[in-house]
Amino acid sequence: MEIRIDRESTIPLYMQIYSGIRDMIISGKMPAGYRLPPERKLAEQLGVNRSTVINAYRELKSCGLIESHVGRGTVAAIYSTGDGAGRAAGGRTEHMAGIGAGRAAGEMAGLPWDSTGTAQHDASMIHPMPWDQLFSESSLRMQDTTVRDLLKLSGRKDMILFAAGVSVQDIDSLDDLQKIQAEVIKEHGHNAIKHVPSDGFYPLRESISKLTGSRGINASAQDIMVLSGSQQGLYLAACAFIDPGDVVFVEEPTFFSAIHIFRAQGARIIGIPSDRDGMRTDLLAALLRRFRPKLIYTIPDFQNPSGAVMSIERRQELLSLAYRNQTIILEDDAYGMLRYEGDSLPSLKAMDVHGNVLYFSTFSKLLFPGFRVGWISGPQRVLHRLTILKQMVDLHTSSLPQMIIDRFMKEGLLEEHLEKLIKENRKRRDVMLEELDAAGLEGTAWNKPEGGLYLWCRLPDWMQPSALLSRSVSNGVSFVPGSVFYPGNAPANHIRLNFTYPTPPEIREGVKRLAAAYREARKEQKKYSVGDHAELGPIL
Amino acid sequence: MEIRIDRESTIPLYMQIYSGIRDMIISGKMPAGYRLPPERKLAEQLGVNRSTVINAYRELKSCGLIESHVGRGTVAAIYSTGDGAGRAAGGRTEHMAGIGAGRAAGEMAGLPWDSTGTAQHDASMIHPMPWDQLFSESSLRMQDTTVRDLLKLSGRKDMILFAAGVSVQDIDSLDDLQKIQAEVIKEHGHNAIKHVPSDGFYPLRESISKLTGSRGINASAQDIMVLSGSQQGLYLAACAFIDPGDVVFVEEPTFFSAIHIFRAQGARIIGIPSDRDGMRTDLLAALLRRFRPKLIYTIPDFQNPSGAVMSIERRQELLSLAYRNQTIILEDDAYGMLRYEGDSLPSLKAMDVHGNVLYFSTFSKLLFPGFRVGWISGPQRVLHRLTILKQMVDLHTSSLPQMIIDRFMKEGLLEEHLEKLIKENRKRRDVMLEELDAAGLEGTAWNKPEGGLYLWCRLPDWMQPSALLSRSVSNGVSFVPGSVFYPGNAPANHIRLNFTYPTPPEIREGVKRLAAAYREARKEQKKYSVGDHAELGPIL
Repeated sequence: MEIRIDRESTIPLYMQIYSGIRDMIISGKMPAGYRLPPERKLAEQLGVNRSTVINAYRELKSCGLIESHVGRGTVAAIYSTGDGAGRAAGGRTEHMAGIGAGRAAGEMAGLPWDSTGTAQHDASMIHPMPWDQLFSESSLRMQDTTVRDLLKLSGRKDMILFAAGVSVQDIDSLDDLQKIQAEVIKEHGHNAIKHVPSDGFYPLRESISKLTGSRGINASAQDIMVLSGSQQGLYLAACAFIDPGDVVFVEEPTFFSAIHIFRAQGARIIGIPSDRDGMRTDLLAALLRRFRPKLIYTIPDFQNPSGAVMSIERRQELLSLAYRNQTIILEDDAYGMLRYEGDSLPSLKAMDVHGNVLYFSTFSKLLFPGFRVGWISGPQRVLHRLTILKQMVDLHTSSLPQMIIDRFMKEGLLEEHLEKLIKENRKRRDVMLEELDAAGLEGTAWNKPEGGLYLWCRLPDWMQPSALLSRSVSNGVSFVPGSVFYPGNAPANHIRLNFTYPTPPEIREGVKRLAAAYREARKEQKKYSVGDHAELGPIL
Repeated sequence: MEIRIDRESTIPLYMQIYSGIRDMIISGKMPAGYRLPPERKLAEQLGVNRSTVINAYRELKSCGLIESHVGRGTVAAIYSTGDGAGRAAGGRTEHMAGIGAGRAAGEMAGLPWDSTGTAQHDASMIHPMPWDQLFSESSLRMQDTTVRDLLKLSGRKDMILFAAGVSVQDIDSLDDLQKIQAEVIKEHGHNAIKHVPSDGFYPLRESISKLTGSRGINASAQDIMVLSGSQQGLYLAACAFIDPGDVVFVEEPTFFSAIHIFRAQGARIIGIPSDRDGMRTDLLAALLRRFRPKLIYTIPDFQNPSGAVMSIERRQELLSLAYRNQTIILEDDAYGMLRYEGDSLPSLKAMDVHGNVLYFSTFSKLLFPGFRVGWISGPQRVLHRLTILKQMVDLHTSSLPQMIIDRFMKEGLLEEHLEKLIKENRKRRDVMLEELDAAGLEGTAWNKPEGGLYLWCRLPDWMQPSALLSRSVSNGVSFVPGSVFYPGNAPANHIRLNFTYPTPPEIREGVKRLAAAYREARKEQKKYSVGDHAELGPIL
């Protein structure tokens, strides 16, 4: 055991000894169970008073680093992280062992600790950090784990995911992506791995500017800011505009993450009734006067979850009312390019003569959802402020995915992809509609959306979506219960079905599983009550 | 001009006409200057009363969509975004024009509008949205644009960037990256483009768990959460723990983005004096009693900007004092693996018997800074809450970069890369130290850091860093003025020099340019005042 002490130092000798031993324990040089020299012996060896070593050992004991046992003397306690973990990471062979063979450092060490590296005999086991008291008030507003639960559910192997929120993923061969990737590295060289500006890789902003032209929007590259998914834009806008107590209007039902984001900022969220033509703007004037909202959040095209398309009259009315009240419109156009039939309507942003629309969209529903690339178009003054916020949140969106998507567009591959995607999504929608028609789900109604990803189904009043969900999940099919799409008290009898992610055979099988769950739930129900079925029309 | 009207509809006829024309204008079918039929003629054509058409035209005029001119009749106003932008995006040829040829939609249209698509004669030109009044109070706390300015500066071609914050970028050939990319797509198939969990791609979490073992940290994959850069972790932790008015301790000086992030959450930031051994923990006990901070933010190894390494005694003291006060320690270990000489000290997390350290690190200073992949290790209860926050911020870190970095580690390439990187960084540090010694910067002192990316220089008191910076930038060399690293009133005479990003010849040239700027600034100074040089020791 080698301890260097420095008699010239201002650090007391006992602290130097303490530090020397502590370092050896922590670094793994002195493994658990290592026998330390008796105090007298070490004092002699170092040429210090015995009381100095006694003091050092006392400090080490009080930290739980060493232990004294009658008969065994003083030993290093179970602490050394260097032992297992250090070796595992340092040694090349283990490091290369790969996913299958690789076990976590903590497990490899084989030590009886919890994950934070706390020894069992430590005081912190009795008085742990009071994390729950330390969380901020604002962070405690976020209790909902809908997304987490859905992402978890999506990991189960045999499950048919009517709960999904993405388009068909596997219609393209991956050869294009391989080719594009290689070209990007070749073209951009080391720039592909360097930082890019916080508002986005400029050539991508140019490409997006052209793409948004197809939605009728006249935005230059300077009017576009790249986001790590369009949802990030909602988050940044919520930070930029919402003070606690501010009112936000949303369509009812609406995208659940938007509800979480506004709520997390302390907004009061008012749901505006909606029907097959979107937000009920006929109710809006009175509500605007009453609540004076700061933001109106809307998904005018193929609304999530309802599939509704806002009529052109309502778009005009919304724009004009919002401007008169100096209310900002957040237009979420994640689905607008996914139209399977009928004529396109211009986006709100395309009709925005007053400049009060912030337009959000994303590649996530079109291709590469895992890349997390979306964008916002709006006044540069607003983009500038959102950029300052984005610098804190992630500095900038990952460089390589931006470059890949840019090149995908520049080579015209996005258009080819979109054609295929729309055709396939349409087919899958029709398969699901056909299967639902044939399934005999008595008392259930659903819409036939002209685009987007979802069917919105109304169950009979006696059917609890939560009961149906648990049966469905046991049967191997998942969906999203409607209540998560409501900011307040929700009508309890809707569910959202995605028809784009599962393949047609999966859709057929999934609807069969769903119908079986439905019949079981109904049988169960009948045991306890006489069904009192209200008459149901198509809900949207 | 084709307008469909529906006499069965509940929508008034004049609104139907209004909508029909509006759609044509917005969609570009009716370009600016298009002559609309006289009211009487259109009324005949549609079989409606003339007053109906008059009402429709009046609505269109009030929206600025059409204009009446004596002699020219009624024409579509300058509005059609479909004209230029729509064509540009729709036509395949233009779409494929590429970066060089591609001009933004707004420019292509050649229309005299501002970027929000607002026609010049519109009411909103006179009464625009009052954006500055609409921004939230919390977002107005963020005024600093240091990062933005630095990123902009870094874009200038001939500039030698002593202002940089990254390691050498081009020591590796890109062949490895090409190979790894191809393998990732091959191995993961469509999963490479799909969503991954919010807390990270699990195999990467395993690889990081092993990597952190080399820093003495005993964390399993479950104790690791992937971040979009370690700075995102600081942001999430700030959201999770800071309520307005809470106190945060930071080393003085410290990483400027951390200051912005804590300030944005409304924290009161107290700078703790630091020296060559890091944070002055001898002052800490009294300060903890006085301010009761919620968080202590520290960079124990190769501190940014000072290069200081916290001594083992101070690490122990900090851990023990923080635990006793139930204060959370945020340990930023961005530079810990970049040691060029001397012995490593264990990270705070490795010594954290109490479990109150949240450990942040990142790949950004090692490789692929543009990928934005970092991580946090901490108690699972905390990671769970941060995950809920991250879902709002970006749902998850981009999938492909996570998979590339994971494979890079699994194949042992990170270790190879680190060896090269450390060797090259050390060389560059020595070149800069040598050049500075030879440059004769009278009255200036700097440290010799054992690792990290920065030299921290103290200028003589009569030299203003801002004056030196503007001269330096004209001479083609940039650095970061020291004031941005202080939460409060800053001593005005420090600058930070990065020695890892510029090549050795660039470092030699850059120091020459800096020295020239220095002499100019000095000459200028002497004109106005007699230098009163305090005696200066090496500052760190």
